[in-house]
Amino acid sequence: MSNPEIEAQLAPLRERVQEQGNLVRDLKAKGAPEIDVKKAVAELKARKKLLEDKELALTPSVVSFDRAKMEDLLKRRFFYDQSFAIYGGITGQYDFGPMGCALKSNILALWRQYFALEEQMLEVDCSILTPEPVLKASGHVERFADLMVKDVKTGECFRLDHLIKQALEKLSKAKDATPALQAECEDIIIKLDGLNKQELAGVLAKYNIKSPLTGNDLTEPIEFNLMFATQIGPTGLVKGFLRPETAQGIFVNFKRLLEFNQGKLPFAVAQIGNSFRNEISPRSGLIRVREFTMAEIEHFCDPVLKDHPKFGNIKSEKLTLYSACNQMDGKSAAQVQIGEAVASKLVANETLGYYMARIQQFLLAIGIKPECLRFRQHMSNEMAHYACDCWDAEILTSYGWVECVGCADRSAYDLGQHTAATGVRLVAEKRLPAPKTVEVCEIVPNKQALGKTFKKEAKNITDALAKLSLEEITKVEEQLTGDGQYKLTTADGQSHELGKDTISVKHSTKTVHVEEFIPSVVEPSFGIGRIMYSLLEHSFQCREGDEQRCYFTLPPLVAPIKCSILPLSNNTDFQPYTQKLSSALTKAELSHKVDDSSGSIGRRYARTDEIAIPYGITVDFDTLKEPHTVTLRDRNTMKQVRVGLEEVVGVVKDLATARTTWEKVAEQYPLFEQQEASK
Amino acid sequence: MSNPEIEAQLAPLRERVQEQGNLVRDLKAKGAPEIDVKKAVAELKARKKLLEDKELALTPSVVSFDRAKMEDLLKRRFFYDQSFAIYGGITGQYDFGPMGCALKSNILALWRQYFALEEQMLEVDCSILTPEPVLKASGHVERFADLMVKDVKTGECFRLDHLIKQALEKLSKAKDATPALQAECEDIIIKLDGLNKQELAGVLAKYNIKSPLTGNDLTEPIEFNLMFATQIGPTGLVKGFLRPETAQGIFVNFKRLLEFNQGKLPFAVAQIGNSFRNEISPRSGLIRVREFTMAEIEHFCDPVLKDHPKFGNIKSEKLTLYSACNQMDGKSAAQVQIGEAVASKLVANETLGYYMARIQQFLLAIGIKPECLRFRQHMSNEMAHYACDCWDAEILTSYGWVECVGCADRSAYDLGQHTAATGVRLVAEKRLPAPKTVEVCEIVPNKQALGKTFKKEAKNITDALAKLSLEEITKVEEQLTGDGQYKLTTADGQSHELGKDTISVKHSTKTVHVEEFIPSVVEPSFGIGRIMYSLLEHSFQCREGDEQRCYFTLPPLVAPIKCSILPLSNNTDFQPYTQKLSSALTKAELSHKVDDSSGSIGRRYARTDEIAIPYGITVDFDTLKEPHTVTLRDRNTMKQVRVGLEEVVGVVKDLATARTTWEKVAEQYPLFEQQEASK
Repeated sequence: MSNPEIEAQLAPLRERVQEQGNLVRDLKAKGAPEIDVKKAVAELKARKKLLEDKELALTPSVVSFDRAKMEDLLKRRFFYDQSFAIYGGITGQYDFGPMGCALKSNILALWRQYFALEEQMLEVDCSILTPEPVLKASGHVERFADLMVKDVKTGECFRLDHLIKQALEKLSKAKDATPALQAECEDIIIKLDGLNKQELAGVLAKYNIKSPLTGNDLTEPIEFNLMFATQIGPTGLVKGFLRPETAQGIFVNFKRLLEFNQGKLPFAVAQIGNSFRNEISPRSGLIRVREFTMAEIEHFCDPVLKDHPKFGNIKSEKLTLYSACNQMDGKSAAQVQIGEAVASKLVANETLGYYMARIQQFLLAIGIKPECLRFRQHMSNEMAHYACDCWDAEILTSYGWVECVGCADRSAYDLGQHTAATGVRLVAEKRLPAPKTVEVCEIVPNKQALGKTFKKEAKNITDALAKLSLEEITKVEEQLTGDGQYKLTTADGQSHELGKDTISVKHSTKTVHVEEFIPSVVEPSFGIGRIMYSLLEHSFQCREGDEQRCYFTLPPLVAPIKCSILPLSNNTDFQPYTQKLSSALTKAELSHKVDDSSGSIGRRYARTDEIAIPYGITVDFDTLKEPHTVTLRDRNTMKQVRVGLEEVVGVVKDLATARTTWEKVAEQYPLFEQQEASK
Repeated sequence: MSNPEIEAQLAPLRERVQEQGNLVRDLKAKGAPEIDVKKAVAELKARKKLLEDKELALTPSVVSFDRAKMEDLLKRRFFYDQSFAIYGGITGQYDFGPMGCALKSNILALWRQYFALEEQMLEVDCSILTPEPVLKASGHVERFADLMVKDVKTGECFRLDHLIKQALEKLSKAKDATPALQAECEDIIIKLDGLNKQELAGVLAKYNIKSPLTGNDLTEPIEFNLMFATQIGPTGLVKGFLRPETAQGIFVNFKRLLEFNQGKLPFAVAQIGNSFRNEISPRSGLIRVREFTMAEIEHFCDPVLKDHPKFGNIKSEKLTLYSACNQMDGKSAAQVQIGEAVASKLVANETLGYYMARIQQFLLAIGIKPECLRFRQHMSNEMAHYACDCWDAEILTSYGWVECVGCADRSAYDLGQHTAATGVRLVAEKRLPAPKTVEVCEIVPNKQALGKTFKKEAKNITDALAKLSLEEITKVEEQLTGDGQYKLTTADGQSHELGKDTISVKHSTKTVHVEEFIPSVVEPSFGIGRIMYSLLEHSFQCREGDEQRCYFTLPPLVAPIKCSILPLSNNTDFQPYTQKLSSALTKAELSHKVDDSSGSIGRRYARTDEIAIPYGITVDFDTLKEPHTVTLRDRNTMKQVRVGLEEVVGVVKDLATARTTWEKVAEQYPLFEQQEASK
């Protein structure tokens, strides 16, 4: 991490970040105009990006990774591939073949064990089709959009930031590009993320950017909502969307879930399911897709009690934290014990810290490389408007650092929004330490007088009165005492003058034992496809000296198939042993693959390596003799041991469930020395 | 099954069915006009329905089942409930709460074990969003529709058959209804399923049926496609649908899957996933919904080789078969060994028979009552146009017999359709027993002459020539030899006269070693929601003598939570034992629930019974003494045994994984006699 040569190259870049970080801090401290802060932040991000790009360029594993080679293998052995390819395919949609599907299931099974079971979460399974009002309340109808432009003649659509980047790159590479123009273009490209709709439209105009293939004019930037819309039911009048995240299904069920938990907080709810985003131009393989599986947790707790009972279990876990502060100072991420991070308030609370540590444990268990995992804190300017603190688990891949798990304290935002939209109070209660006497202040309508004066309108008036808040009631009282009149606006927008004859304000006291509050939510949200893709990159290897023999070192726990059975040749004497082993493996619930095809044993091993099968049982001529034995081969080391026929399934079971390791097995059983090639 | 009293009541109904069945057979044998056959079949169905309704009315378990009581419990303990209820809800959509979600996962896990693992299937996970051309080829765009009518003023939609049924029922119950009118209405209601669009429009007109609430006029019947439509991508030009079944995702990946299986047949592909149907007016709870989970298998095999290598394992399995023949004869379903059924050709082939037996084994393993399961064969008139033979596993519930698993031989239909639509040959190859010399007959275009004569059209002509089938080539040859001219129609619909100067037909021979063919598909398709609902009905019970204490006797294998831990009271001495047990159960991967709330132990048991927890561990004062012991209670019998603290988790693990039974445990450990009530 701290190679002095590399650090020397990075030092000037770090300084430039820090300089700008300090400027941002100054501007904020001085209360400078928002536009100035925004500009300074955009420049800060640009400098950070230069630093990060340089850092990555100096990281050998990232530079040397051959993505095309891996993708070829993934396609060839159908881990996953583009959906509907025989119909020309659709970008941003993928079908998982047998190996991808099994890998995904195994990751999800382990996720259930790590989170749902271990933390006794309530797992739910909610609808994908969501009516519009729900997503209006959550803010998605208004804000879940990207900017795009259209070719005015062909109607082809382009994501605006992608289009500008491409156009300026082309411009700056043109023969007649002056150094000034090149610098200008580079500067804009780096700052693109920070520009708003007007500024982007300005760039389009200034550089006279046209539709890339046709050269036609482009429309003004348009906000394109990323949700897939449809109609629910036959009338065509009930608008619905495919959910863009699974979380809302949990929030709208909060009351039922709280009741299921007998009214007690904290509790956590988990959901695994598909979500959908109609990306304008999806790319980067599994990283940015239109249809994806998420695993989300909503942990509901008292906003003033964010301790976690099991924090002690994980407090000495070391995490690589890339704090907002370090990002502004141009510093690297740092290894910190999570206990210290929470104690020093770097991480907002124990519950958030607990989940961060558990996320790390889970990611390492499935095989993510520890040196390629960091938790990056959102800087205050990029945090969603509802979040108090947010740390993304980012995984380093050939696409750079990819956000794979978000871990945010969403405070009371969502429950508050749905309460406001529906009038159903999504709240919890807690017992007060001691009963409390509270002043109650309410409006008493004189129904007879109201009826007489307002006739049909009386009901609307009493309804509106019942909804007044405590503050508003105080105002009513003041005005009645003052000029003897209060002007009330009813739900249909009409206003009415109410006098002392029609309403009065009554004061009383009552003893309360409980207090109502909107719970806070801590949300770890896992993008399963991204995690899976990163894991495949991290586990992709080629055999030394034979670049054509590629394989995946997926840990046995998540490997799609746990074991292969390979008879040495198609000699029929081997068949009863092959069948017996297959039945025994099925009984032990171990996925396996019999390969009795005619290839050489070495070639068949190579085929099983390609699909990440960690262990291989070979039935050979010694198997036929008593005591019956087989060889057991380890994918990663290619070493083999000789194990009794009756024992081998138990050994594989222990290996596949991580109850033992290959090292231990290799100590316990005699090594089988015959070379693969010689068979 | 054969109570003589009941049979006496059913005999006349059976006779009427048989009489009509024979008439249908006669008409078909005579080659009567299709309209006559259709009418006779509608009458046959009507008579069958009367018979079935009577049979059900005489079945005590169905009559006495209290659905409202069960639904109340399911709602109260949040097994499942209507989605988005706080927003008013949407009919036909359900959210699964913690218990429903766990039950569903457990059923699916067992399904994977029974099918994917045991049969070594290739499991895949394909996209939900499907572009239009795929569903055009499968026939869904054209045919996947129900008839509806709209209120001309309000636009409210009604499913036509439901509306007519409701209207005629009302009409026949009116005070002034003559017996003749009543009989007429009843007759139409029974025959509704068999009526086409015109006939239904006729019924609407004849009885002057109006919009039920408003009395407004109704539109003519409209075909409403049941797929949810959306646009993929930002242009609004790529039409897509949410898939109505998972099967198509498998078919379009056939080539990749065959290659994954190294080109060999047979092989089976499994997929679990959500599908969507925009029902016009969903009802019947989980039975008819807009969003549902399916588990589908597509077994690809050689059309002339539908034997199954493992058929011997299940051939003596007895199934209740309700054959098309028995349905036409008014007979009951019959218990038949599947081996006999295949031998006698009642079931079309071994592969179909094998899956039927395996479906039964699976359904019984999750807890479906054997006496409430039958396999009903589709009669030739109701079979999908592509199927050779089709048997539905139907489960008896309070809604009648519900189709829960379809098991159809779809022949080569789907692969053929996608091949035709894409030009990608979805075929397999098989080695011929001996190389074969075949005559090859092809058209040789004289390109120069074609170009000269037809100019720009020449390319279209050569393309069209290349697509001619062997039969068509023979015709070309005949015509060229005859009048020396062949009239060819190109893809753009133009026709051209081709003479001997522009084309000729060449004959040659070649030796082939393999033969291409389109595989047949046998498809077992499971509706998981329907199976789950049926299972809940079958396992719903109330304690004798206490109708308020209801519970579910779900088998431990699928029960949402395997075990409860109940400290006898909130005495703090119990805490370390409760915690230790909870950790040990987590380590053993057993879902469990600690209930240390203050209710009496009896009441807490009742609460765990409601959510189907099969076993309960109670920590009591004897637990504190050495040797430490706890009690273990069985939900179904309410019996308890005393077990060592260190042993109990192992015992629960064996019970939960069906490695032992409560009977055996009760023999092995001392009975604990203290009454629940006395605690």
